[in-house]
Amino acid sequence: MERETCYTVVGAGHGGKAMAAHLALMGYPVTLFNRTAAHVAGIQARGGIQLTSADSKDGQGFGALRAVTSSMDQALAEADIVMIVVPACAHQDIARMAAPYLRDGQILVLNPGRTCGAIEFVHTLRQEGCTADVIVAETGTFIYASRSDGPAQARIFRTKDAVPLAAIPATRTAQVLDRLCPAYPQFIAGENVLHTSLNNMGAIFHPALTLLNAGRIESTHGDYQFYIEGVTSSVSRVLETLDRERVTIAAALGVRAVTAMEWLQMAYDARGSGLNEAIHNNPGYYGIKAPANLEHRYIFEDVPMSLVPIAALGRQYGVQTKGIESIVRLACIVHGTDYWRTGRTLDKLGLLGLSISELTTYVMEGILP
Amino acid sequence: MERETCYTVVGAGHGGKAMAAHLALMGYPVTLFNRTAAHVAGIQARGGIQLTSADSKDGQGFGALRAVTSSMDQALAEADIVMIVVPACAHQDIARMAAPYLRDGQILVLNPGRTCGAIEFVHTLRQEGCTADVIVAETGTFIYASRSDGPAQARIFRTKDAVPLAAIPATRTAQVLDRLCPAYPQFIAGENVLHTSLNNMGAIFHPALTLLNAGRIESTHGDYQFYIEGVTSSVSRVLETLDRERVTIAAALGVRAVTAMEWLQMAYDARGSGLNEAIHNNPGYYGIKAPANLEHRYIFEDVPMSLVPIAALGRQYGVQTKGIESIVRLACIVHGTDYWRTGRTLDKLGLLGLSISELTTYVMEGILP
Repeated sequence: MERETCYTVVGAGHGGKAMAAHLALMGYPVTLFNRTAAHVAGIQARGGIQLTSADSKDGQGFGALRAVTSSMDQALAEADIVMIVVPACAHQDIARMAAPYLRDGQILVLNPGRTCGAIEFVHTLRQEGCTADVIVAETGTFIYASRSDGPAQARIFRTKDAVPLAAIPATRTAQVLDRLCPAYPQFIAGENVLHTSLNNMGAIFHPALTLLNAGRIESTHGDYQFYIEGVTSSVSRVLETLDRERVTIAAALGVRAVTAMEWLQMAYDARGSGLNEAIHNNPGYYGIKAPANLEHRYIFEDVPMSLVPIAALGRQYGVQTKGIESIVRLACIVHGTDYWRTGRTLDKLGLLGLSISELTTYVMEGILP
Repeated sequence: MERETCYTVVGAGHGGKAMAAHLALMGYPVTLFNRTAAHVAGIQARGGIQLTSADSKDGQGFGALRAVTSSMDQALAEADIVMIVVPACAHQDIARMAAPYLRDGQILVLNPGRTCGAIEFVHTLRQEGCTADVIVAETGTFIYASRSDGPAQARIFRTKDAVPLAAIPATRTAQVLDRLCPAYPQFIAGENVLHTSLNNMGAIFHPALTLLNAGRIESTHGDYQFYIEGVTSSVSRVLETLDRERVTIAAALGVRAVTAMEWLQMAYDARGSGLNEAIHNNPGYYGIKAPANLEHRYIFEDVPMSLVPIAALGRQYGVQTKGIESIVRLACIVHGTDYWRTGRTLDKLGLLGLSISELTTYVMEGILP
């Protein structure tokens, strides 16, 4: 008889706490890792996390954790599956920290990878000299809508029905899904990590919507409806341009990406003659407030970890990304940071100079030239 | 005895009506030209324009015009000084229309030129085969704050104290000022047209402030304070970047441009530790509402006629203009127009390939290599 699957959740933010508690309540042995020990002291003291859930009977109660640690060594020692639930900006650091302790057969899942998270993770492990035969996968989006209301508390508002996941190489996606299925039957096969990476709607919506409403966000501290009042005809024209650039880059790589319009219809049954109308026809967007300021992951995560790699792929494969580049540049100015340098550039991903067929071979079969 | 100076005012918008009426009330023979005859039918019927003025005793009453016409031939026949008061987008057309009728000794003044208006005007006259020895000059800003409340009415809120003006070549600026002085002692010598063109504050403030508040403008129809609520720390960081690019380009051309901070202090005695603070310390900005929509000259005039030539000069002389370029691109997307093509590019200005010393010789002495 197979022994029970041991989960380690990396990251004790809103999402990580919800996932750790939920897995524990499903009966799995769960270790929770967080870099900063102080941040999880409350959970350690209580021995777990109190979870409430709006849509799941099994997602209620006290999720007792097997261990809470800030030692990566300890976090990975017993793990079969490592669920990484940290901002994408931290993926590379986590890879560096994990590299020395990984063992053959372990599965690591970025929840989600944003754009090229799994590729960056694998490249970083390789650079760190890690030779363990692990599988790295990424999801297209985070499975929960969740929030943490206290140090050892989490709340799940909604669990998504279908979340695409792809491993690198794609030949191992099925193996990851098999292992995850008992806990998360919602994960479905994304064709390969270029699909999960390029179907990144946050990249299109978040930074542009934030920057084209920068004055309003800062002068009202976000006191307006982010989508309903922030998206107007001119703003949506910019979103449509960014979306067209994203989908064109995907097409150049042989990937049929979902357009923002298609996604709004699939995810929310929201339709319209253009993005402006479709967004206003999405009841789910009513009531969502804007961020309180511009020091927000809509810029500091979505720009370097999503728009920068999308633009970098566009450049390497000859697709113009003038709209995306303008948004990235404005973000650089606003944050006084060179996101072109700190972001996921192709050299950091190990993709510099690859032909399209070499890139495809890499994501499908894991073989680099 | 010298005969009386005859003025022709080209353009019967808010500004043109105020200027025509004011010149008439000062006692000059004034012809008012407007391309669309229907637009000035009311003025023609009444024979002049009723002017009210907040700050000038001579600016009150009915300004009787010598002629109101939509024939350029007639407009220029008796003109000594042609005051061109049209959006900068129309300068080139006006030059084409005027070219066949110009006579030696006539003076043409663009009120204002925005960036490189006089250079474009002279180049267009040359292209049209005009050989008349005319002087073309541009002002750095429009002399009045004015508004037209009815077909044959104008109102002057304020007349500026000092308005830089430069002729092309600069050796003829003094001659223009001499002729204008009896009517407009407020005009002062700008060093050359690169100074008047590069000290363009609207270029820095208008498009960026509009785009970084696009959602708010469109969702509130401009119902907020354009400067006071629209300028925030992030927005001002973008303005500061654009301003630095402008001033750096000017420096590369040997021009000491006024910074936006210096200008706020000079024009409004508004100071601060940065643009955000200085703008909020300017009482003059309180109460100014935003444009009602994005179909506004803050984009369709300031982008192609100001930001595009500034960026084009930057490119030719090796100064990076990434901030300006981002704003131009977003404007292109929002308006579905290629402002890089329709705007004042160096080929349209006749400046393509000139060295800095050739450019300087041209604006100072009127000699092209």
